[in-house]
Amino acid sequence: MNDAARAPALFVTPGEPAGIGPDLLLQIAGRAQPGPLIAVADPALLAQRAEALGVHVELPTVNNGETLPSEHVPGCLPVVPVGLRAPVTAGELNPANAPYVLETLEVAIKRVLKHGALVTGPVHKGVINDGGIPFTGHTEFLAEHAGGTPVMLLATPRLRVALATTHMPLRRVADSLNRRELARTLRIIDGDFRRRFGIPQPRILVTGLNPHAGEDGHLGREELDVIIPVVRELRAEGMAIEGPVPADTAFTPQRLDGFDVVLTMYHDQGLPVLKALGFGEAVNVTLGLPIIRTSVDHGTALELAGSGRAKAGSLQAAVTVAAQLAARA
Amino acid sequence: MNDAARAPALFVTPGEPAGIGPDLLLQIAGRAQPGPLIAVADPALLAQRAEALGVHVELPTVNNGETLPSEHVPGCLPVVPVGLRAPVTAGELNPANAPYVLETLEVAIKRVLKHGALVTGPVHKGVINDGGIPFTGHTEFLAEHAGGTPVMLLATPRLRVALATTHMPLRRVADSLNRRELARTLRIIDGDFRRRFGIPQPRILVTGLNPHAGEDGHLGREELDVIIPVVRELRAEGMAIEGPVPADTAFTPQRLDGFDVVLTMYHDQGLPVLKALGFGEAVNVTLGLPIIRTSVDHGTALELAGSGRAKAGSLQAAVTVAAQLAARA
Repeated sequence: MNDAARAPALFVTPGEPAGIGPDLLLQIAGRAQPGPLIAVADPALLAQRAEALGVHVELPTVNNGETLPSEHVPGCLPVVPVGLRAPVTAGELNPANAPYVLETLEVAIKRVLKHGALVTGPVHKGVINDGGIPFTGHTEFLAEHAGGTPVMLLATPRLRVALATTHMPLRRVADSLNRRELARTLRIIDGDFRRRFGIPQPRILVTGLNPHAGEDGHLGREELDVIIPVVRELRAEGMAIEGPVPADTAFTPQRLDGFDVVLTMYHDQGLPVLKALGFGEAVNVTLGLPIIRTSVDHGTALELAGSGRAKAGSLQAAVTVAAQLAARA
Repeated sequence: MNDAARAPALFVTPGEPAGIGPDLLLQIAGRAQPGPLIAVADPALLAQRAEALGVHVELPTVNNGETLPSEHVPGCLPVVPVGLRAPVTAGELNPANAPYVLETLEVAIKRVLKHGALVTGPVHKGVINDGGIPFTGHTEFLAEHAGGTPVMLLATPRLRVALATTHMPLRRVADSLNRRELARTLRIIDGDFRRRFGIPQPRILVTGLNPHAGEDGHLGREELDVIIPVVRELRAEGMAIEGPVPADTAFTPQRLDGFDVVLTMYHDQGLPVLKALGFGEAVNVTLGLPIIRTSVDHGTALELAGSGRAKAGSLQAAVTVAAQLAARA
């Protein structure tokens, strides 16, 4: 039986070893899962954290070439081993382990390019940079190692929000918006919603950049100069896009009705409402990559690592969504 | 019995005569209200719209010097008369009536400077400008005619959001933020929440300007250069301010717990989430003025004028909040 015929494996990188990523993975490994979870991490780290949390999880090592399990057995978490560079104390960042964090990602990406899906826990950008490695984020790292043009999507059961621009200072947003990239982003959303989400005609609501979507140019010109021409062009090609609409009314139940996703122009235009409505179950899905990748929507929460008080809602949701997308692939 | 001893009058300007403002006012005039509603409008317009809607509302004229009613009688709406400049067809803007719209505001402001509270319906900025009158918005007009430094607050039963900057193109936001004005805005919020809302120690949560509140300068410097110094200064004076926090996690129930108001740095950082959670009952309250002023949170909805399908939730909430604030004044 080759890999392609099996339930897709869900490779999970717990991320920053001093953060809550290992805790969350151990927590959900104790439960039934929609597919076989495979950790990509140092088994000793997981064993140590399991002990701190008082949970019992078997951690068999998966070696190269070995057949992957076809389903998840609660209480058992197979591990593709990657060695820590330095011992880990929960809650204490150590730049010496920055190469470890990135190696877990590299190893996982190589596996997922062949089979399965990638689920990532939270990393700490600062400590990776302190480790002497330029790193702007998971998404950029994935694009570099897997190829593609990433588009960030946050999804909850009630709402999906994609971003036209992501992690940049607010003062750079307006100049970063341009017709070519906006059109590419919309094409990726449309294509991936068809292919990965199984929606035959994705309906996309696009917000304006400016308050009140610019009020016909009175409050900014990017709607007239960039967004409206792109929406018009792609609608003419048959895509189901509406907008630009004012962001402050885009998320009312009446306005959302009938749309599969809202494309907002920048980070804080779309994510506050998504996370307010998401109640800890938002999943970050990267569109535009050759692989399926989902992620938690939260940070490393160093102060909770090893405490047993971290909540696994977002990691569980990321695993569930990854399994759904992988089953359709 | 002088005005000061009576239930405060609630002067309502219906705003754009071709829009839904008159409809909404006539709708709520049919119900019990927390104080005497007084329209500031053309009685003929209201009579004409009442007929179109098939509602029966008496419209007695209130003349200068006349004693105001002390309570609202459902089905009766006293009117301080202001004459239209041209006949009105529901749904059709006419720049000839721009001076009428502004006169209703001027007349209402003069009344409210003596007694009561102001509740404003939606105006159409474009048609006022087309009428040859420079007009950037209600709030600026109020500051000019009543004095003070307006701070925009949107309130729902569950959430209050104030704005550090309001109606400007997104590309101007970062440069518009400065220590002096941010400190002034926070002082106005603190002062008005004490005085008008009766909260002895208002707890204010402040968002960052940049995504992730700038990540220690990696995603923008305004947190370090502007927001953090102001928060530190005002906390030292005893104000209960926290932040800057990332906007995308500021509105989760856990984070909001214990705060009376969130100050966001710009329009689309705070209002999408407020309106998504507000379900048509958000009220715009202008802080920093010598008068009490509330407003609907929606536009003129020209296509619904005269149809009977406009929803009066926001105007009703604006009247209710105005009455609460006026009772405390």
